[in-house]
Amino acid sequence: AMIRVATQDAFSEAVASAKPGDQIVLADGTWQDFDALFQAEGTQEHPVQLTAETPGKVILSGQSSLRLAGNHLLVSGLVFKDGYTPRSEVISFRRDSEALANNTRVTNVVIDGYSNPDRTQRDLWVGLYGRNNTFDFNHLSGKLNAGPTLAVRLDTAASQENRHRIRHNYFGPRPVFGSNGGETLRIGTSHYSLTDSLTIVENNFFDRCSGEVEIISNKSGGNIFRGNTFYASRGTLTLRHGNGTLVENNLFDGAGAPYTGGVRVINARQTIRNNYFKDLTGNRFSGALVIMNGVPDSPINRYHQVVGAVIENNTFDGVAAIELGEGSDAERTATPVNSVFSRNLVVGADGGSPINLYDDMGGVAFSGNLSSAAPPAVIAGGFDLRQNLTPSGGAFLAMIDGAGASGTYGVAKDQTGVSWYPKASEASPFEGGRDIQLQPGTDVLFTALKTAEPGDHYTLAPGSYRESKIIQVDTPVTIASRGGDVAVLSFERSHLFVLTGNGSLALGGLVVSGDAAPDGSGNSFISTSSIRGSGNHILSLSHIRVQDFDVNRGFSVVSAAKGSFFDRIDVENSDFENISGAVFKLDEETDDYGIYNAEFLSIRDSHFKMIGGPIAAVYRGGRDESTFGPHVDVTGSSFETVANGDQPLMELYGIQKGSFTGNTVVGAKPIALTFTTGLPVFTSSGNTIDGATQDAFADIADERNR
Amino acid sequence: AMIRVATQDAFSEAVASAKPGDQIVLADGTWQDFDALFQAEGTQEHPVQLTAETPGKVILSGQSSLRLAGNHLLVSGLVFKDGYTPRSEVISFRRDSEALANNTRVTNVVIDGYSNPDRTQRDLWVGLYGRNNTFDFNHLSGKLNAGPTLAVRLDTAASQENRHRIRHNYFGPRPVFGSNGGETLRIGTSHYSLTDSLTIVENNFFDRCSGEVEIISNKSGGNIFRGNTFYASRGTLTLRHGNGTLVENNLFDGAGAPYTGGVRVINARQTIRNNYFKDLTGNRFSGALVIMNGVPDSPINRYHQVVGAVIENNTFDGVAAIELGEGSDAERTATPVNSVFSRNLVVGADGGSPINLYDDMGGVAFSGNLSSAAPPAVIAGGFDLRQNLTPSGGAFLAMIDGAGASGTYGVAKDQTGVSWYPKASEASPFEGGRDIQLQPGTDVLFTALKTAEPGDHYTLAPGSYRESKIIQVDTPVTIASRGGDVAVLSFERSHLFVLTGNGSLALGGLVVSGDAAPDGSGNSFISTSSIRGSGNHILSLSHIRVQDFDVNRGFSVVSAAKGSFFDRIDVENSDFENISGAVFKLDEETDDYGIYNAEFLSIRDSHFKMIGGPIAAVYRGGRDESTFGPHVDVTGSSFETVANGDQPLMELYGIQKGSFTGNTVVGAKPIALTFTTGLPVFTSSGNTIDGATQDAFADIADERNR
Ligand SMILES: [Ca+2]
Ligand SMILES: [Ca+2]
Repeated sequence: AMIRVATQDAFSEAVASAKPGDQIVLADGTWQDFDALFQAEGTQEHPVQLTAETPGKVILSGQSSLRLAGNHLLVSGLVFKDGYTPRSEVISFRRDSEALANNTRVTNVVIDGYSNPDRTQRDLWVGLYGRNNTFDFNHLSGKLNAGPTLAVRLDTAASQENRHRIRHNYFGPRPVFGSNGGETLRIGTSHYSLTDSLTIVENNFFDRCSGEVEIISNKSGGNIFRGNTFYASRGTLTLRHGNGTLVENNLFDGAGAPYTGGVRVINARQTIRNNYFKDLTGNRFSGALVIMNGVPDSPINRYHQVVGAVIENNTFDGVAAIELGEGSDAERTATPVNSVFSRNLVVGADGGSPINLYDDMGGVAFSGNLSSAAPPAVIAGGFDLRQNLTPSGGAFLAMIDGAGASGTYGVAKDQTGVSWYPKASEASPFEGGRDIQLQPGTDVLFTALKTAEPGDHYTLAPGSYRESKIIQVDTPVTIASRGGDVAVLSFERSHLFVLTGNGSLALGGLVVSGDAAPDGSGNSFISTSSIRGSGNHILSLSHIRVQDFDVNRGFSVVSAAKGSFFDRIDVENSDFENISGAVFKLDEETDDYGIYNAEFLSIRDSHFKMIGGPIAAVYRGGRDESTFGPHVDVTGSSFETVANGDQPLMELYGIQKGSFTGNTVVGAKPIALTFTTGLPVFTSSGNTIDGATQDAFADIADERNR
Repeated sequence: AMIRVATQDAFSEAVASAKPGDQIVLADGTWQDFDALFQAEGTQEHPVQLTAETPGKVILSGQSSLRLAGNHLLVSGLVFKDGYTPRSEVISFRRDSEALANNTRVTNVVIDGYSNPDRTQRDLWVGLYGRNNTFDFNHLSGKLNAGPTLAVRLDTAASQENRHRIRHNYFGPRPVFGSNGGETLRIGTSHYSLTDSLTIVENNFFDRCSGEVEIISNKSGGNIFRGNTFYASRGTLTLRHGNGTLVENNLFDGAGAPYTGGVRVINARQTIRNNYFKDLTGNRFSGALVIMNGVPDSPINRYHQVVGAVIENNTFDGVAAIELGEGSDAERTATPVNSVFSRNLVVGADGGSPINLYDDMGGVAFSGNLSSAAPPAVIAGGFDLRQNLTPSGGAFLAMIDGAGASGTYGVAKDQTGVSWYPKASEASPFEGGRDIQLQPGTDVLFTALKTAEPGDHYTLAPGSYRESKIIQVDTPVTIASRGGDVAVLSFERSHLFVLTGNGSLALGGLVVSGDAAPDGSGNSFISTSSIRGSGNHILSLSHIRVQDFDVNRGFSVVSAAKGSFFDRIDVENSDFENISGAVFKLDEETDDYGIYNAEFLSIRDSHFKMIGGPIAAVYRGGRDESTFGPHVDVTGSSFETVANGDQPLMELYGIQKGSFTGNTVVGAKPIALTFTTGLPVFTSSGNTIDGATQDAFADIADERNR
């Protein structure tokens, strides 16, 4: 029977009496704080269904979640948004550890931006338990908080060898998380990784899934990844634990985006065939193909040796790096054995060979490959040179003489997810809004930004803008002086702007004075919120002058709250003078869990004078190798009397990449740089220190156990 | 005319057209987010009035504030509660720096608990600017966030020599703030302190105003403090800056509460006469009377020498300490000069003399004083002994032979504030609620605590309680096993309890297991919220067993969020085993602004075994001398394998008082103790370390510049 329900109580009653073939229909509208438990017994021919009156018109919001338990259930048409789960999962294929769902399908469901506002709070959007479940044609986009978007759990016998199918889903953008725990998909955990999952992941579209180094973390055996598209996604499909997985017919299209990679191979009997790797810029852990060294007699949570890998008939079209023996160090000494690398077509991005060897590849048989440039001599016998080959650009390379992939790869975006919910835009967050003119006065910005819409541009006529309240910015906006003139901002509270939610700021041509700020420590021009602020913020400062930030101690320009994250802070052509604290204070994550406050800090063509703290304090603790950042780049800038002249110019702890080039420094101590994990790179050149050319201007402490 | 207004727009219109003698009446009800500007011109005979339709029935809530500007205004009958000001003040005697209020009176107004939920956000509840204003018969209670409750500002010439009157107000409890910035009243700032304020503060009742070491921070000249009662208030009326202030006829009644003090004297021409100091327990900076040493040629924000002080006819009845030459060190070397200490009556609390000399008192003429015990010999000539005198207890001592105070002192509580709003209770926060019986099951506590009321007691029948959601505790509750039986709690999210608002917990007789907690770093049993959590939390753990907190790194029992504060954490007769992180993690305030996470941590008769981090990590940065805490006391407890045996048993940075007595330790490194400011005291005795008696079990680093 079809039972339409309009209240949570009615739903519970309908579930309690549901029989095979029944269809429980949720009434259109918003279901607030709906703690739904759908436990029932259907049959293969007559599942018990939970559907929407109109697909896409049934919204579960606030503190809602859905638990499934029983057999032969079918769920479709629901949308989770405007809230987050109070449980450890949004959709759970179990009631609790005692009642799982089997033979159950969830389809045509949307989970959009349903992230815990405290991004350090860990949850799953989908937890697959039980056996023989199908998750297909769903749309999962914009997870910002800790924990994989979807995870297959193998934690009891009843969830192992599960043969789940994860098909035709749209995985929308997952921005950089800024720590381990930003996977889009995880299958298993190290503890159960020698168990087979037998999950099939096919024809899904991964759109900018860039949470961390693992787009997918495969941690069980016998899985198949087939026909998926990975578009502009940082990191790799990582075969982290478990054996005997097949990766075929996938398209890895980096679109030239940074850190885009392909497949990272670890463990035994992994097969990588007929995949197309295109325009991937990543190297090292994020190469187009990465074969890791193992740890001899590895514990279950470290790196098992690559044994019996088959890498064949793949096309590498314009890739930056194929890394062989990656991770080789004092611990990871077990090189791959009994493996083959055959009939692959390799075209490097820049004319040279993308193949790098970090250890002995004697255990890999190279044969029948074609390459546009000579690979390292020791493996060159397995390659024929075709120096006329170049990256295909918009097109695809066909198989040549039996080398490379053929047939179709990946899936079109519109073949995934649902038709009735829009997929994520690629437009700049700072575009698409209104143009608004403002005149000088008191609380002008506070009043204007109360009704801000995404992409709004506020243009300030010259004059003085005095703000008596903190302005919460929860959407991307641009605030700039009218061309050629200058608006002067001052503020009476501890901060002028606090970024929350999706708040981002592009500021141009402004003077910012701290002279009206309160006489307390720890003021800043721009701060963030840890609780309301799950979003990935972007901050751009162009032609800004910041002055008189010295009423009390620790006055910063930008200070990140613990648990908040900036995708980027870009500073150019700006001046900073009389600042009592750290200019960019991004060091709140001191717990050494690998969390940090900003992915990129870029400063160029700017001037700093009379600064009480360091220019930048950046802290990324922990020893995991899960992130590409933080990055700090400083170029073409000048520094005069920083950190009172007796402390470091910058304090950079645990950053992964950095540069200091073409700068002029007077009266400051060298950058304090601490390497803690990963393969950090810091370059320094063209600097003038106290009148003399001095390229190296950093005290480097290397705490890595290498 | 009388103009009744019921909307914010109608109010603004009424103000715009107000004439002398007009009375604008706010309609009864709740005014949400009312950003009220009352700018008008009255006359002395015909002020412009802003009143409540019914006093106490007009509630300004949410993000409301009131600014006054003009002349001869009168405001009465309003209540601010359930919110906080978005500006830097709740009631401001100015519109902005250009328009001040003069000859204006605010009376019969209540501000109750109107604290910014982020306690580090600084504001004033009342900012007095202009001249000749009266603030009387108001009720200000429960400020929790940074910044003085009421401040007189002298920042422009138009606000100096202001002759304000602050009379008959009820200043309700101001709990420990946990940093500088918790003053109840401040007059002036160091910058303008050589200017006269000429403010009169009389007949006010200070009820448990214990925010920091300064109940009142007097920072200007020519003020009068007369006839006030200070009841059970920590700290002192501090004559911090400025000269020529009179303190007379006040009652300082400590009621035996910790750290209660009287008057601290600094600067020139201060007069302290005819005050009654009763049952005050404080010493050093918080003595009944404290005469500070000065800094020669002091900068304006340090300590000016005491010159020409007159201390006469005061009664000290059962006080712990009169500190003379306090603060004497390498910097503060200027002893008081040209001063008199005459006809005072001194009765120590414990039979001995409360008078301590820290430097040469040759510049103070002692004469005609009476004392119950012999003072230090060098000043004994100025005292007659009356060894029969003892503390008066409930009564008052009369003047004896011309020594001591006479007449009346202080003010009765009911002569202050308003009659129509209740003053603060002295009952325990854990009493007065319901008794509720709970049975084992899933999410039983989550469901029960959703409707918790202050003082509720939840009694748990034996069995297993499994919680799948985080429980927010915003009111004081007790949760205990039924006598003799044991309830076992486990939880599936990163925390079981998060204390917010006024949340406090008393837990008894429970077993808490971490075995269901998520596999992520940084879990804890009890945490706090920095944004929603402005309250002073109390936590009591009695007969608790905590086990299996080791699923991942950094699993704590209690972890304080940055910006949150515990009044007390009391632990007794409890066991902790297999904990991967710090047991009590109270070290989030690393900015060195003098903020910290807990005032008291007390552990007794408890057992700790297999602990990955330290037992306690406590951090109090900064170099200010504004706080009495943190305190850490550990007694009668045992420790086996703490911090993996290779890191300190406790990491205590910047604590003010501590003890480690009668404990047994096996397999742990000594306590890491860092003294940074103040006059820290740490005692250690009766301990057995690895089988041997060893009293000292701390590595002490003293970073003070003494
Ligand atoms: Ca990972
Ligand atoms: Ca103070």
